[in-house]
Amino acid sequence: MGIVVVGSIALDVLSTPKVKRKQVLGGSAIYASLSLSNFAPVKLVGIIGEDYPNEALELLRSRGIDLAGIEKMAGRTFAWEGEYGEDLAEAKTIDTQLNVFGTFSPKLPEEYRREEAVFLGNISPDLQADVLSQMENPTLAAADTMNLWINTQANALKALLPKIHVFFVNEAEAKALTGERKVLRAAHRLGERGPRLVVIKSGEHGAMAYDSRRGQSYWAPAFPAFEVVDPTGAGDSFAGGFLGILLQSGDPYEPLAVKKALAAGNVMSSFALSALSIDGLAAIGASEVQQRLQVLSEMMAHAPDAFAARLA
Amino acid sequence: MGIVVVGSIALDVLSTPKVKRKQVLGGSAIYASLSLSNFAPVKLVGIIGEDYPNEALELLRSRGIDLAGIEKMAGRTFAWEGEYGEDLAEAKTIDTQLNVFGTFSPKLPEEYRREEAVFLGNISPDLQADVLSQMENPTLAAADTMNLWINTQANALKALLPKIHVFFVNEAEAKALTGERKVLRAAHRLGERGPRLVVIKSGEHGAMAYDSRRGQSYWAPAFPAFEVVDPTGAGDSFAGGFLGILLQSGDPYEPLAVKKALAAGNVMSSFALSALSIDGLAAIGASEVQQRLQVLSEMMAHAPDAFAARLA
Repeated sequence: MGIVVVGSIALDVLSTPKVKRKQVLGGSAIYASLSLSNFAPVKLVGIIGEDYPNEALELLRSRGIDLAGIEKMAGRTFAWEGEYGEDLAEAKTIDTQLNVFGTFSPKLPEEYRREEAVFLGNISPDLQADVLSQMENPTLAAADTMNLWINTQANALKALLPKIHVFFVNEAEAKALTGERKVLRAAHRLGERGPRLVVIKSGEHGAMAYDSRRGQSYWAPAFPAFEVVDPTGAGDSFAGGFLGILLQSGDPYEPLAVKKALAAGNVMSSFALSALSIDGLAAIGASEVQQRLQVLSEMMAHAPDAFAARLA
Repeated sequence: MGIVVVGSIALDVLSTPKVKRKQVLGGSAIYASLSLSNFAPVKLVGIIGEDYPNEALELLRSRGIDLAGIEKMAGRTFAWEGEYGEDLAEAKTIDTQLNVFGTFSPKLPEEYRREEAVFLGNISPDLQADVLSQMENPTLAAADTMNLWINTQANALKALLPKIHVFFVNEAEAKALTGERKVLRAAHRLGERGPRLVVIKSGEHGAMAYDSRRGQSYWAPAFPAFEVVDPTGAGDSFAGGFLGILLQSGDPYEPLAVKKALAAGNVMSSFALSALSIDGLAAIGASEVQQRLQVLSEMMAHAPDAFAARLA
């Protein structure tokens, strides 16, 4: 099964305590597409300006990503400037230049609309809803978001939730959106708003998925990475790995599929944060993904009967 | 294999936003012993005053816990008063009355000294070292600690680390003790000081264990509890479950044993925090423990080949 991906396409300025680089490839749609391309065919939707490098489009094409949904306009590509502190956790937005993105009005190509799955990467909830409304009958609709929309467009975001099947959010955002203090309670609350799966990302603590129909939660640890270089796009890359596994599963809500999806999400985000910009994702293929999935497997108990304890 | 447990024995005053109770059973040795008693024979070491209730001793005896190492002195039992905020996370210490604990100089009964395992529950690192020195040749020596000792007796604590095999610490303590900002790096640093296994507890995010010899980390999620009533003793109960599984294992560092131990630790802490004082631990037996281990198993991917993804 293939998937339509929409989101921002950006040329970023990134600063960490160790490094600063300008005009690097970024944007939620780019990270998510590159991550997803390891698992399933991707149809990308987005807008770029005249300054967008051809080599970037070539890279996406070389990953088998369909670019028919990319619109090129006169002007400059959306630009985001972010700065990370010593903890390399949340970015502080220094500057945002909407540029061509300011007039983005996505029009999905005909063959995109019949696709069975769609990932609404981090853009405004109104744009996400617009794209979703152009899909004919997706069986798997997923969305990510960010604190900006929670703070400024919470109602539009809440209106989107009943229309999607999978909702990605990080821990701080989940707590802000629900007013709850514990991850599990926040997941439960978000599930009541509609999404079948609520996926909460907790950085170095891994990620959880809550199946609101079954009332069942799942967890997987973060990939054990000693060095974080640049966390930009880690969440989008997570979503790519997670959805990639669901797309391969006959039943995306089957417990083992969800658990595999969590592991793959954590693995893909670990590649994203291992290098600046998209370099971590661009450098890897099937064997690297498989190797890190195996490392995560070794970190967790497996074989259910392993849990049988001799009790006194 | 049996285990010697030393630590505080207390009559606590506990306040949470919902409830306040006085003269309730507490202390690191009590929580750890009750938890461990589900897995292995326990020999308890500690000191109590004349006010310590006989029913408490009866409860311990009914769990098969050996009380030959309990000293009873004229005066009152150690008393701790703690208060929890709305988040039911860290307790604020309101008052500490050492009472008979102020003169505690543990003397291990002869048959205790030959035991193969010892758990040095949360008391001062000097007392922990004293008890450890009385053990003839323990093959499994484990210790827990708290922020008080990290802030006031860091050197004594660091001197203890090379002498133990398993070190339990919570996430904030691990970061404070090492100056590191990430759990995995903190675990690595602590492992360099000697303990073979560094176990870091992260509350609702579960727990990780780092095998410093293998350079391998393991992880298990917290039991999915919607209600936290009283987190007192959750860490001691975790240690009890973790060590209980290691004691049953031929090789305590065998990866599957460590992973099971993490799961059992999380399960036992979930019972502790589900009710006030020791009530959560006192109410359960083998079948409840087994049931929650099964729930945790369902939350994680198992069967290593489940990780094989069809990569594009």
